[in-house]
Amino acid sequence: MNQPQSREAFEQRLRDIGAERYHDKHPFHAMLHSGQCSPLQVRAWVINRYYYQSRIPMKDAAFLSRCDDSDLRRAWRSRLEDHDGELEAGGGLRRWLKLAEAVGLDADFVASARGVLPATRFAVDAYVRFVRDMPLLDAIAASLTELFAPKIHAARIEGLLSHYAFANETSLSYFRNRLQEAPKDVAFGLDWVLSHADTIEKQDAAADALIFKTDVLWSQLDALYSAYVEPGRIPPGGWDGTEGVTGDD
Amino acid sequence: MNQPQSREAFEQRLRDIGAERYHDKHPFHAMLHSGQCSPLQVRAWVINRYYYQSRIPMKDAAFLSRCDDSDLRRAWRSRLEDHDGELEAGGGLRRWLKLAEAVGLDADFVASARGVLPATRFAVDAYVRFVRDMPLLDAIAASLTELFAPKIHAARIEGLLSHYAFANETSLSYFRNRLQEAPKDVAFGLDWVLSHADTIEKQDAAADALIFKTDVLWSQLDALYSAYVEPGRIPPGGWDGTEGVTGDD
Repeated sequence: MNQPQSREAFEQRLRDIGAERYHDKHPFHAMLHSGQCSPLQVRAWVINRYYYQSRIPMKDAAFLSRCDDSDLRRAWRSRLEDHDGELEAGGGLRRWLKLAEAVGLDADFVASARGVLPATRFAVDAYVRFVRDMPLLDAIAASLTELFAPKIHAARIEGLLSHYAFANETSLSYFRNRLQEAPKDVAFGLDWVLSHADTIEKQDAAADALIFKTDVLWSQLDALYSAYVEPGRIPPGGWDGTEGVTGDD
Repeated sequence: MNQPQSREAFEQRLRDIGAERYHDKHPFHAMLHSGQCSPLQVRAWVINRYYYQSRIPMKDAAFLSRCDDSDLRRAWRSRLEDHDGELEAGGGLRRWLKLAEAVGLDADFVASARGVLPATRFAVDAYVRFVRDMPLLDAIAASLTELFAPKIHAARIEGLLSHYAFANETSLSYFRNRLQEAPKDVAFGLDWVLSHADTIEKQDAAADALIFKTDVLWSQLDALYSAYVEPGRIPPGGWDGTEGVTGDD
């Protein structure tokens, strides 16, 4: 039987997956962060990315529903709290809708998910299903794209503030908060995966789960790019830039 | 309570969905059928479309597994037989692999699904899940894209024969067979949906299911176009045109 990789080598393997495949390398992000996106493109990004955000608490609830270890549940529950927030204050989702309003979109329209591209739905729903159906180790490993998120969030805050009138501390509060929240989540998840993937088979499965998750993220940007940048062909029934728009360009 | 649409009006509504949203309108098909696809693009289409084909019997088996009406099961079972075929002769899937070989691909590589785009997987898997999870009426309604298939298959046979050296009666036998098989399937499915969607709510659900299915098909071609035509950006880990290629360009 093959020996498992050392903890250090396995962690490096996971980090290499991010270096090769994380969506910070997607050209849509280069456009967005350097001020090259039109109002239509920014809005399309906000609408489609909100669908991903909106499914994260459902994904985490699916995880909790399968988890019979109370300690693990307690550690994981903060993710739900971060995104959904308290009864009055709201959490990450409400902060994301502040961004939607700032870019000239009706928050109820964005929350309705009516403008979301089918390919975005397919990718995001695949992630929720993955967490519902696969071993817990794989589900936690898939969350480790958060290892690579603080860097992109910091670049996004800086890029949006420099280039877009809608950007300010209120509209970007989602990303600012994530800079605090994500590191504690990912430190826990990474330690759990490194400790529990104690055979080469489990290490391979965890690496595959992380690759799967990078596919989920990349596919969303490919769909956005295809519809709203190049070739710029909006699929049948897709959002054409009019419904739900409240602001001027 | 709202009255249901008449049988004729409801059928027209379903046909209008195809007229507006079926993937025969996708520019990739115009390229393919008019001889404008490079060998790489033809191969990428064959690889990705095979994944869809390969999931159709699984989708139909999921349908059968949920169906407690023996008459309906018997009528539906011929779909499995068409695609999987008999023990020795094989069926639609084996015919598709003939096409794979004719365009210069290793059949085992295509069958392995290693070259398939993540977005193709997400869309196709969403369809299998839909049929596994949704009401039988919705599952059957989703199959009614076959109403629109004979026209595209006939155009494809004619277009491929005119423009590509790989095209002959053996390599295109999948499409030739579908010209015979699809009309009997869809006549049964259409009659079933028209008869069982006896409230406006069920008619709406059936129409939504057919729209969902057109999204599944369209998304696959958008992903293919994005990766291999314009912008021509192959996602991380995506097939780059080398693995599994046996023929010359």
